[in-house]
Amino acid sequence: MSKVQVKKVVVAYSGGLDTSVIIPWLKENYGCEVVAFVADVGQGAEELVGIEEKAIASGASECYVVDLKEELVKDYIYPTLKTGAYYEGKYLLGTSMARPVIAKAQVEVARKVGADALAHGCTGKGNDQVRFEGAFAALAPDLHVIAPWREWDLVSREECLDYLAERNIPCAASLTKIYSRDANAWHISTEGGVLESTWNAPNADCWAWTVDPEQAPNEAEYVTLKVQKGEVVAVDGKELSPYQALIALNEKGVKHGIGRIDIVENRLVGMKSRGCYETPGGTIMMEALRAVEQLVLDKASFEFREEIGIKASHLVYDGRWFTPLRKSVFAAADALAEDVNGEVVIKLYKGQATATQKRSENSLYSEEFATFGADEVYDQSHAGGFIRLYSLASRIKALNEAKK
Amino acid sequence: MSKVQVKKVVVAYSGGLDTSVIIPWLKENYGCEVVAFVADVGQGAEELVGIEEKAIASGASECYVVDLKEELVKDYIYPTLKTGAYYEGKYLLGTSMARPVIAKAQVEVARKVGADALAHGCTGKGNDQVRFEGAFAALAPDLHVIAPWREWDLVSREECLDYLAERNIPCAASLTKIYSRDANAWHISTEGGVLESTWNAPNADCWAWTVDPEQAPNEAEYVTLKVQKGEVVAVDGKELSPYQALIALNEKGVKHGIGRIDIVENRLVGMKSRGCYETPGGTIMMEALRAVEQLVLDKASFEFREEIGIKASHLVYDGRWFTPLRKSVFAAADALAEDVNGEVVIKLYKGQATATQKRSENSLYSEEFATFGADEVYDQSHAGGFIRLYSLASRIKALNEAKK
Amino acid sequence: MSKVQVKKVVVAYSGGLDTSVIIPWLKENYGCEVVAFVADVGQGAEELVGIEEKAIASGASECYVVDLKEELVKDYIYPTLKTGAYYEGKYLLGTSMARPVIAKAQVEVARKVGADALAHGCTGKGNDQVRFEGAFAALAPDLHVIAPWREWDLVSREECLDYLAERNIPCAASLTKIYSRDANAWHISTEGGVLESTWNAPNADCWAWTVDPEQAPNEAEYVTLKVQKGEVVAVDGKELSPYQALIALNEKGVKHGIGRIDIVENRLVGMKSRGCYETPGGTIMMEALRAVEQLVLDKASFEFREEIGIKASHLVYDGRWFTPLRKSVFAAADALAEDVNGEVVIKLYKGQATATQKRSENSLYSEEFATFGADEVYDQSHAGGFIRLYSLASRIKALNEAKK
Amino acid sequence: MSKVQVKKVVVAYSGGLDTSVIIPWLKENYGCEVVAFVADVGQGAEELVGIEEKAIASGASECYVVDLKEELVKDYIYPTLKTGAYYEGKYLLGTSMARPVIAKAQVEVARKVGADALAHGCTGKGNDQVRFEGAFAALAPDLHVIAPWREWDLVSREECLDYLAERNIPCAASLTKIYSRDANAWHISTEGGVLESTWNAPNADCWAWTVDPEQAPNEAEYVTLKVQKGEVVAVDGKELSPYQALIALNEKGVKHGIGRIDIVENRLVGMKSRGCYETPGGTIMMEALRAVEQLVLDKASFEFREEIGIKASHLVYDGRWFTPLRKSVFAAADALAEDVNGEVVIKLYKGQATATQKRSENSLYSEEFATFGADEVYDQSHAGGFIRLYSLASRIKALNEAKK
Repeated sequence: MSKVQVKKVVVAYSGGLDTSVIIPWLKENYGCEVVAFVADVGQGAEELVGIEEKAIASGASECYVVDLKEELVKDYIYPTLKTGAYYEGKYLLGTSMARPVIAKAQVEVARKVGADALAHGCTGKGNDQVRFEGAFAALAPDLHVIAPWREWDLVSREECLDYLAERNIPCAASLTKIYSRDANAWHISTEGGVLESTWNAPNADCWAWTVDPEQAPNEAEYVTLKVQKGEVVAVDGKELSPYQALIALNEKGVKHGIGRIDIVENRLVGMKSRGCYETPGGTIMMEALRAVEQLVLDKASFEFREEIGIKASHLVYDGRWFTPLRKSVFAAADALAEDVNGEVVIKLYKGQATATQKRSENSLYSEEFATFGADEVYDQSHAGGFIRLYSLASRIKALNEAKK
Repeated sequence: MSKVQVKKVVVAYSGGLDTSVIIPWLKENYGCEVVAFVADVGQGAEELVGIEEKAIASGASECYVVDLKEELVKDYIYPTLKTGAYYEGKYLLGTSMARPVIAKAQVEVARKVGADALAHGCTGKGNDQVRFEGAFAALAPDLHVIAPWREWDLVSREECLDYLAERNIPCAASLTKIYSRDANAWHISTEGGVLESTWNAPNADCWAWTVDPEQAPNEAEYVTLKVQKGEVVAVDGKELSPYQALIALNEKGVKHGIGRIDIVENRLVGMKSRGCYETPGGTIMMEALRAVEQLVLDKASFEFREEIGIKASHLVYDGRWFTPLRKSVFAAADALAEDVNGEVVIKLYKGQATATQKRSENSLYSEEFATFGADEVYDQSHAGGFIRLYSLASRIKALNEAKK
Repeated sequence: MSKVQVKKVVVAYSGGLDTSVIIPWLKENYGCEVVAFVADVGQGAEELVGIEEKAIASGASECYVVDLKEELVKDYIYPTLKTGAYYEGKYLLGTSMARPVIAKAQVEVARKVGADALAHGCTGKGNDQVRFEGAFAALAPDLHVIAPWREWDLVSREECLDYLAERNIPCAASLTKIYSRDANAWHISTEGGVLESTWNAPNADCWAWTVDPEQAPNEAEYVTLKVQKGEVVAVDGKELSPYQALIALNEKGVKHGIGRIDIVENRLVGMKSRGCYETPGGTIMMEALRAVEQLVLDKASFEFREEIGIKASHLVYDGRWFTPLRKSVFAAADALAEDVNGEVVIKLYKGQATATQKRSENSLYSEEFATFGADEVYDQSHAGGFIRLYSLASRIKALNEAKK
Repeated sequence: MSKVQVKKVVVAYSGGLDTSVIIPWLKENYGCEVVAFVADVGQGAEELVGIEEKAIASGASECYVVDLKEELVKDYIYPTLKTGAYYEGKYLLGTSMARPVIAKAQVEVARKVGADALAHGCTGKGNDQVRFEGAFAALAPDLHVIAPWREWDLVSREECLDYLAERNIPCAASLTKIYSRDANAWHISTEGGVLESTWNAPNADCWAWTVDPEQAPNEAEYVTLKVQKGEVVAVDGKELSPYQALIALNEKGVKHGIGRIDIVENRLVGMKSRGCYETPGGTIMMEALRAVEQLVLDKASFEFREEIGIKASHLVYDGRWFTPLRKSVFAAADALAEDVNGEVVIKLYKGQATATQKRSENSLYSEEFATFGADEVYDQSHAGGFIRLYSLASRIKALNEAKK
């Protein structure tokens, strides 16, 4: 495949070894100007210190650092939470939800600087390449996409370090790195190392953020969340923006070892991978939202919300954020969240977040319920008729069979 | 509604206050012979001591005690576990799964003694009446069904006790009973009392079986389950029948406070109720089965299994066991479970059961995977083509819009 | 069951035999004032001639005739069409969609006249009672509901006629009426008579509106529909309101025998019924909308639209219009319809409406597509990579099995 | 990409221009022996005349012609029909169902002759390459797959003819071919030509098999199908094998112009295509099966069957025949088909196949139904209780809101 002609490329730059190599590699292999784009999605202030200088030192002509933390939580995470999505029953989609907000901002930088190409540092075996390029296809189908990991022949950290050394590009990366991690305000994921055998239990190194539940406080702690239209709007009585609410809950969750999962999952590209994920604040939020739903959603609505959650989990995981289907599924979830208002007390104890108290102005379960009086709302004798009709098809079928 | 003519009725008898009243009430109000049927579903040996004498003393002409423990686990619980069903995301269907096996055995007793009617002691506000009568409609549409709680005007325990006292029927039941419970080998449920307000946290009295996680051992314990075709067949290396496996796991689960949930759920009859459920061994089993599925099911199969789980949860909860739809959904789950073989180590610690190690001969994730070699099974360059086609519709749509 | 105390009741009045009896019956049995409410949903001008006088003559204190034709099509039918709902694969929900608009208007009349009860003339074996009372429960839970057919002991037309004669209430109804019909602007349904055996084919009397396809013109006719956001907005180049568009298409459909179906369906109340439905204009509309969707919806969106269609068909059929779930499902359909814009030519010929030409500005299939050029949008070599990843799980599974 | 080493390849050979080129091309480019494999799936006897000689003349070392007609209908089509699958609401999957049976037989030939590779003549823009290679991945992951259309640079019929002429390989193919067709016992598809614009109506050349409905007999014809467990087992009283039944119904369908559709569909590879499909006998079969289901399936089962139908349509279309998910979905459909027994009369008239009479021993609608008597099976007063519970959540919600 002959290489496309590119004049200026915007690369999603993290400051790590891979993307540090990508900058000179793009210049050498495509003869183009390279603009670095850094997304601040809450991966940690220490990751961003001096990053612009680093990018320039690697050969970038410019470096844009964009703060996406509030947007990530408000426009990507909160809507997803309303759907109740857990990928394959467990994973709270931390990496998946961050990719579209990053890709969108990257396209915006590309438009601003008049770039004709986009590049990312995702490998060819993972989901993220699909998420980035799926977003690019929807938002900037006219721009070329370069995925160096699928093109170059560098195959080890040593080769990458040599590549930089040969070009006198400074890099603080170490030669060995056992685990592969992704971090943002919502979660940290860890892959590799001992996790490569599913018959190994995760060890202490597999967890990067939360306290080990066994080391967590022996005393439970309680936190109160206020929920409006399926969104957490206050923590312990204090109104907070989505991002602030997440930060506040992360702090509590980390302390009590909340939100650790260890999962073997199906990647979109057809293989399985195994990872440890930590989502401390998010796990508390999900427990709270589901608790309010228990009060508010009727049986059929609850079932549909569960179905929506499965669909949403795949759409978000699979990088389909900017598609009509994602919008349709989320529109359904938004409608269901209309009445999801209330307050929930969550108990935090040694790795578990458990809703212990919950109330809602829209509760279909209500202390006043009994006072409606039997004849007003529910008459036990109604049940007899209900059951007859409810089981009528069974009865007819059984009577038919008895006649044979 | 004039009463139907009945000669001999088989009543599902528990030895408790309600069903003790039902026996004389049926005789007086229907002028019929009453046969007591007691299902042993593992509710506890103490519940069954002297139960035949008690039934006869209450006026039953005969009393049949049928051991359904193994059948319950083997033919009702194990198939349901393969579907991955959690009702409304949480409830492991302990009461729901027991009703059909009881109803079926009750019908068999009715056929044996030549009865023309069936009776149960379920109230008119709950799900169990629907489950019993749904089963009766499918299995014995020719038999009359009597639901005394929907007919009589006894409304308190006091009235029930008076009713028995007036007839000199001995009864050890106490005047007050705060919580309503249902127990079998799989679970114990608790409703009523402080739980009636969703803003009350459960207190110690709301839990009848498992140790409080805060009082559970400070040392984690590990247990190994062997899974074949989606069924637990051995515990810690010892082959066990379904019921025996459950008993073994219950013992461990109880000790570590495993399997407590506190849920507000939608009853089939249209109202919400709140209950605390304890399913110690079952929770461990579910964790193990889901862990093997993580290794074995491909992405699309996993998603379908999740959908099947939602459907199954409603079918079982709603008393539709003996219907074509239940059979169809379970046939789908059986097919998916074909490859669900493996071994799982579960860590038990202060209320949590967590799969820490897992392996399967059918694993799509495998230590040997890497050795297939890049060119044999996966070539990173394939991903580029995959992504182009995968996002083609997005690209065409975006190009269309750009042209406008 | 003792009767509730009622002062003033609003009855859904059709002018037919049943509802003519209901007025005096309500007065005699409930001692209340009776207000007649007539919904004009396009059942035919002849049905409405002199209806107010008839209601007063039957004993009503007042009679309100409300024109709901435009509202029915705009707010109930059009949104349902976007979902693609066919109940049990065939039925276009003509009666089902009319019930909520009628019930809502009836409640509004009740509020206006200060009534404390609502009554309808639906029988106890059908769906309509559930649709009316489901709407009443959601819109006016404080009003009593009276369903005379479930209370009285009149069981034949003869008894109804006698009832009126005894009270000197004039009625033009005939003693015998073989078929039971329901008509509105959208459809006419026919039940009863020869249809009672499913082994009888429908005869000419089973069809009340459309020309027999065998008698329809031997020349095909073509009609062009313009579609915007999933709604028909113009017919043959003429912009029309929803109701006008339906009327225009009905005229053409009737002439060509379009929209006849003969179906055995599952009623919500557990039994099956058989009916012949005629939906001439509606059938043409559905064909046009689905044709535009073929151009516009991507694969995953199309599949979701099909699932949404099934769900919507049950929700509408089952009388769940005024529920959160219905709103959620329709919100999803609305989102998908955003791009459903275009033009369709429909061929009408002897009972068939077939889209023969279709185009859309949002078409993902486009004549210009080829001109994107192979290298711009689609490169055949991409397919190899796509297939490798798409079938990777199958390959790994097969390789695993080969190793055993 | 360097070419793999191949010794002997089995190519799916049709005798047409493309596959005639593939034989010498494989020999020249892979230096391997080429074995031709011809699947007889009912594409027409004329297509098979002298095909072995033709293959040998093109350079094949051997040619295997395998009769798959009965297997196609029995093991692929009949099971699919039980699911009720119409791809995107219309397409009866004629090409999709044939691919797996062909691929499976091709693998068997490869095993027999000891081949180490498989080849097919599908283009890189279509679905069939995915279906073949998906089957190969599941059945023969150890064999190499060669897809010449994705490798070579021949881009026109002219170049292909030149290629053969240069090698003195005789070929009767014409220089121009407007439409692309695929035929088997079940259907014929037509793409290309005027169909390339969706604003063109199909012309007479777009239909290759069935009589134009406008030219079909003016007299309707009736045919009776007997159905057992969801399969057509007899036509007009004559027991027939699946293939024979299809042949018999094709004959009638062709005469009456049955089974034409014109559809724009989403290909799996992300683009849309437009095709005309003719499925005369199959359309009659589907009408008959759905008619029996109307009698037999209860409401919830019918809804699930519809959902299963959508899933199955995608699985079959997408080439996932040999996957666990396909087996699971079909297991569900098989279970539902257990009671789908009966007889149906289908009216054939100018393009339409309409079930006019139907009966089943398992019918839940039955002439005898009424004779069960109101009090035995259905009491209208039951409906009141049913509705109260059915609408209870709506009522509680509305009462809640009224209190605000």
